[in-house]
Amino acid sequence: MFMQNLPSEVLINEVSTRDGFQSEAVFVPTDKKIEMIDRLSLLGLNKIEVTSFVSPKAIPNLRDAEEVMNRITRNPKVTYVALVPNEKGAERALATKADEVNLVMSVSESHNLSNMRMTCAQSLAQFRRICGLMEGSDVRINASLATSFGCPFEGIIAPERVIDVIDQYLEIGIQSISIADTTGMASPRQVYELCSLVRRIYPSVDVTLHLHNTRGMGLTNALAGLSAGINQLDASLGGIGGCPYAPGATGNICTEDLVHMLESIGLNTNVDLMKLLEISRELPAMLEHETSGQVAKAGLRTETRPLSQNVIDLKNRNEKH
Amino acid sequence: MFMQNLPSEVLINEVSTRDGFQSEAVFVPTDKKIEMIDRLSLLGLNKIEVTSFVSPKAIPNLRDAEEVMNRITRNPKVTYVALVPNEKGAERALATKADEVNLVMSVSESHNLSNMRMTCAQSLAQFRRICGLMEGSDVRINASLATSFGCPFEGIIAPERVIDVIDQYLEIGIQSISIADTTGMASPRQVYELCSLVRRIYPSVDVTLHLHNTRGMGLTNALAGLSAGINQLDASLGGIGGCPYAPGATGNICTEDLVHMLESIGLNTNVDLMKLLEISRELPAMLEHETSGQVAKAGLRTETRPLSQNVIDLKNRNEKH
Repeated sequence: MFMQNLPSEVLINEVSTRDGFQSEAVFVPTDKKIEMIDRLSLLGLNKIEVTSFVSPKAIPNLRDAEEVMNRITRNPKVTYVALVPNEKGAERALATKADEVNLVMSVSESHNLSNMRMTCAQSLAQFRRICGLMEGSDVRINASLATSFGCPFEGIIAPERVIDVIDQYLEIGIQSISIADTTGMASPRQVYELCSLVRRIYPSVDVTLHLHNTRGMGLTNALAGLSAGINQLDASLGGIGGCPYAPGATGNICTEDLVHMLESIGLNTNVDLMKLLEISRELPAMLEHETSGQVAKAGLRTETRPLSQNVIDLKNRNEKH
Repeated sequence: MFMQNLPSEVLINEVSTRDGFQSEAVFVPTDKKIEMIDRLSLLGLNKIEVTSFVSPKAIPNLRDAEEVMNRITRNPKVTYVALVPNEKGAERALATKADEVNLVMSVSESHNLSNMRMTCAQSLAQFRRICGLMEGSDVRINASLATSFGCPFEGIIAPERVIDVIDQYLEIGIQSISIADTTGMASPRQVYELCSLVRRIYPSVDVTLHLHNTRGMGLTNALAGLSAGINQLDASLGGIGGCPYAPGATGNICTEDLVHMLESIGLNTNVDLMKLLEISRELPAMLEHETSGQVAKAGLRTETRPLSQNVIDLKNRNEKH
């Protein structure tokens, strides 16, 4: 049956200020970033992926990572995450007291080489050193498995490869993972099957699903993952965070469209959708382009508008006769 | 379980040349329309909703309805449909030998008044007269239930209202219906529940699901409908066919994105996806704007691209050491 076994509550992790802003044509001013994160902090989100401690040369849009991390007003109910590509980044995350670092490796060797300039073995060795660095601190470690469903160079990824990488993560001591459809290649069946498998093999591992809407299947895939026992989803306000290979293609699944859909089927996200929409509607001016989010344009499904006067007249006339 | 009870084969009805073109800012030249329909006719689609026999004053974009119907090259495997708003339209459809006429009434009284300038009772009386007109001809009759899930004026629609209208259609002798989410208000749960109910109460009625992607739930709703026993979906190339109330909001579910998703989960549509994409990629030039279709921009999920030379060098270097 469709939509059975859904969790009653879904945790939403917001990634727009990292995964979204990093690839934008414009630099979002530091004050604007901080203001946006502070507003997002009050809306019931589970985590906010604030920024990335990468080289400012590699990603100039996030060159203000320290300042943003230091100046945001933290809500103790929210986990503030920083993406960390290497040991240097991990030290910066420690110094700015991120609640959680997110490490990234692609399960596809080619994509990891292309994206991280490292083999998977090199990435794993670095993860081990970062875990060493973090020892004794309160910082949580999450590790992402990029290209878990498909790789733009190697094609569809077999679930065995993902399981193999999870085993390697566990061996290092990582107990919190994100299964990522980095370039939006996953099908709903694939998501359902891989997530079911992961939940079955690793019932105590904390699993997030990170989806992109590159081929229009993002929200369907989210529902497929939830049906398979996942209860934590990454999403990005306005659906920002494009795919560099496909001009015009959409990026991450859109937070407000996701929350809107989940609420429409009776799932609780704890997220304040109206305030989320308010912030999302400011994005086009901030980023100087339209975003792919649909609910921000169309309004809630439950919103109604008044009938025009001539239809009211028509109605009254019919009722009289 | 997610995605159980799916039909093994799904019939796809293309509505772009009617539901799409009618609301475009540009008039698509008659020759272009005919060429596009002739190409679509060879791709395995079940039906093509060619045009609408409305007043040219009401919808100038379809003022060439007769010429298009008369000049297309028909494939006997395809059902060529014309939308018909009244008896005059029905006579025009008969004269041009449409295979099927599609009658439309909104289940919401307010929307029917606003859209058709008639009460539901007036619409039903007209349906009865049109059925009379069609008697003795080979023309099939399908009737749509617009706003079956939600009405922009009245809000979410109760399933009882839809069942009530279906009963009235059956009483007139209509055995083929389309349940339409005219303004994209349906939730996946609503689609699953209403479609299950309709399939249970009317097992022998021919049911099509007509969905819009206005709030990003279109493809999820399609899967919900299929899981509930529906095997016929309307869709529009490039997702064209906007919502006049929500600038920038997407319209009908996108044919190629739908076919791509259905094939990704192993369902057979019989549709030639590559050729469909070819035609879809011509739409932005034809309509002078981008379309909302995602797969036309991003490519198939199974398409791969070559690694860049410096990554190949990196790979070779690593393999040597």
